Amino acid sequence: MTPLSCLTFLTDFGLEDGFVAACHGVAARIAPATRVIDITHLVPPGDVRRGAAVLAQTVPAMPPAVHVAVVDPGVGTARRAVAIEAKGGILVGPDNGLLSWAVTALGGIIRAVQLTNDALWNNPVSPTFHGRDIFMPVASHLVTGTSLTEAGTEVDVGELVMLAAPTSRLHDREAEGEVLSVDRFGNVQLSIPASSATDLGIEIGSMMLIRCNRRELTAPYLETFGSAAPGELIAFTDSAGLISLAVSSGNAAERLSLPPGARVRIAAGVPA
Amino acid sequence: MTPLSCLTFLTDFGLEDGFVAACHGVAARIAPATRVIDITHLVPPGDVRRGAAVLAQTVPAMPPAVHVAVVDPGVGTARRAVAIEAKGGILVGPDNGLLSWAVTALGGIIRAVQLTNDALWNNPVSPTFHGRDIFMPVASHLVTGTSLTEAGTEVDVGELVMLAAPTSRLHDREAEGEVLSVDRFGNVQLSIPASSATDLGIEIGSMMLIRCNRRELTAPYLETFGSAAPGELIAFTDSAGLISLAVSSGNAAERLSLPPGARVRIAAGVPA
Amino acid sequence: MTPLSCLTFLTDFGLEDGFVAACHGVAARIAPATRVIDITHLVPPGDVRRGAAVLAQTVPAMPPAVHVAVVDPGVGTARRAVAIEAKGGILVGPDNGLLSWAVTALGGIIRAVQLTNDALWNNPVSPTFHGRDIFMPVASHLVTGTSLTEAGTEVDVGELVMLAAPTSRLHDREAEGEVLSVDRFGNVQLSIPASSATDLGIEIGSMMLIRCNRRELTAPYLETFGSAAPGELIAFTDSAGLISLAVSSGNAAERLSLPPGARVRIAAGVPA
Repeated sequence: MTPLSCLTFLTDFGLEDGFVAACHGVAARIAPATRVIDITHLVPPGDVRRGAAVLAQTVPAMPPAVHVAVVDPGVGTARRAVAIEAKGGILVGPDNGLLSWAVTALGGIIRAVQLTNDALWNNPVSPTFHGRDIFMPVASHLVTGTSLTEAGTEVDVGELVMLAAPTSRLHDREAEGEVLSVDRFGNVQLSIPASSATDLGIEIGSMMLIRCNRRELTAPYLETFGSAAPGELIAFTDSAGLISLAVSSGNAAERLSLPPGARVRIAAGVPA
Repeated sequence: MTPLSCLTFLTDFGLEDGFVAACHGVAARIAPATRVIDITHLVPPGDVRRGAAVLAQTVPAMPPAVHVAVVDPGVGTARRAVAIEAKGGILVGPDNGLLSWAVTALGGIIRAVQLTNDALWNNPVSPTFHGRDIFMPVASHLVTGTSLTEAGTEVDVGELVMLAAPTSRLHDREAEGEVLSVDRFGNVQLSIPASSATDLGIEIGSMMLIRCNRRELTAPYLETFGSAAPGELIAFTDSAGLISLAVSSGNAAERLSLPPGARVRIAAGVPA
Repeated sequence: MTPLSCLTFLTDFGLEDGFVAACHGVAARIAPATRVIDITHLVPPGDVRRGAAVLAQTVPAMPPAVHVAVVDPGVGTARRAVAIEAKGGILVGPDNGLLSWAVTALGGIIRAVQLTNDALWNNPVSPTFHGRDIFMPVASHLVTGTSLTEAGTEVDVGELVMLAAPTSRLHDREAEGEVLSVDRFGNVQLSIPASSATDLGIEIGSMMLIRCNRRELTAPYLETFGSAAPGELIAFTDSAGLISLAVSSGNAAERLSLPPGARVRIAAGVPA
């Protein structure tokens, strides 16, 4: 692997307290020359699935890094703390599935260790703040050259907790998926890859049928929402390569009542 | 121009997704030694005018930098992507007026290019995420020494999209302007420069007449709101040199129902 | 004191404007090689007590630093601007009590100066933006080696404004305190140190009586909320060493109607 040049950091800690900063302080003490890039700290509290999705979609843009992620409703319980070496970087966090999609996004797993070497921790460890006392200190040591095996004992890769991947099925005439996330603009990201649209014969510029909430809608499948009329519903391939729905100068998630997890099917639009 | 030492970054991307971080990752890969200063990412979605105002008021405090700004409701359409060299720095973003007030704040324009050299981009470019794939990579190259002319083809400065400057008119006995922005404290920033108060003979410590929403109010024109009694309405010159209204320990924008864009006139207060 | 390696920054400026960034720009100009760690900028406007609590709980995790804190409802009035040297770092901000708890958290005071040397300031100083024009420039000079005495005239340590410490009293059979803060998860942090639980004979795993809002509740005193059943009220020692209340997968502050400042008493639980 190429040398690791930075740390990234994703949590559900919020920005109103000093929790994120305390972890930055720990990193600055152990790895003073290393840049820390905050991915987000506004994952809804305890929402492991949302954290996993944002992490997986963001790490490909990063330089080779140690990625620290903490959405950890089980902090202080028996869930393991792990470091996972993937082809494109190292992930550090709780073994609750949070890291699992990012492993794939980073090219797949090489090996993993359970964090057991407390010589790398910030002792005494607070039972409720492993971000500050275990994950960030271990990651800071890893980014400065400590080897993975020094951080703990190797674990069987097959035993790591994996989140079920967002379902997406391609049938004969339609693709079925779910709402993976809703961004700040109200754009609805589906778990359906752009390749499914191609497979269904839905071309850029043609109409797409969208079935959700017992309704059937029609929207043009465009390159970008910028070319749509204000208020118009459109479908497009987003920056992560997934089919997404948007309302130009509006909020598609609100208009269509589509929260994360809602089922959506798409098909090629046929003239009535 | 003195050497450029950092990147600044302003968007309407919000902080809940990984969009901002993805751009930071791109910068870290191309310009690993360069500091990135986030200006804000909470510009209301698509509000080019608000983005332009925050950018223009913040860049003067920055060291010589490449300023990346992305509030871009037209992403993926025919609007141009540009880099503008001003006397005090370089601005990179969509040619939709977002950069126009900051150009003035940085001492005026020297030259501008349309970003056409895709060798500097993050390819393949997502039609909906030019921040990650065009603006930030080009800016990162510029900050590390790539010349402006390498980034694209020179454009006629007169063809750049300019936002109409916030209107402010000085009449015989009053100055007329609009609410430029409302900050977190509810302070109302007017488009009327402090020099207009001087021209109208309103001195620090004297009373100011404020006409808005068909009402006429009186407020002392003070050096700072700190010296006012709690609940008192005052006028002062803010840190950008503009006349502003505040309620000590309160919210002036709410009290006076003054959102951005509302018309306000000021005059010297005369004893009734 | 060991060399100071970074700046930290806490304010009530919010993240929607360019205020925080302007201060970062100032730091980048004066101390271009110094890392700036944001603690938080979401202190409720003017809430000096909340700012003091977050600052004091976060600085111990930091490397030796100059800590800049600005929650300053009296900006521009006669309140003094100060720099305080503590055993573990330097604090810079208004002399309104904001820094007082952090001084203790950093091992106690050594000396303090009133910031009077305007050669270190960003002139002309805006009467309403001392963060940009006084506090951050002075702190940036201090972190790069300027001595404290160069920044101003020494002041009598006993004259510094001190916030009353959050009250916590240990009686024969109960400890009495107040809600110090509520975090993003709704966890309620009390001003009662973990040692009080020990003194009262409340052991990990035993029951704690909690008296608040004229009610008496019972909760297990656990190592961490992760081991509780969803919806269960528990008590634990938080990462700052204080007794805290949580509802597993829920919001204790809402459930118990406990805002900051509310009085709470704890005692060893006795079987009814």
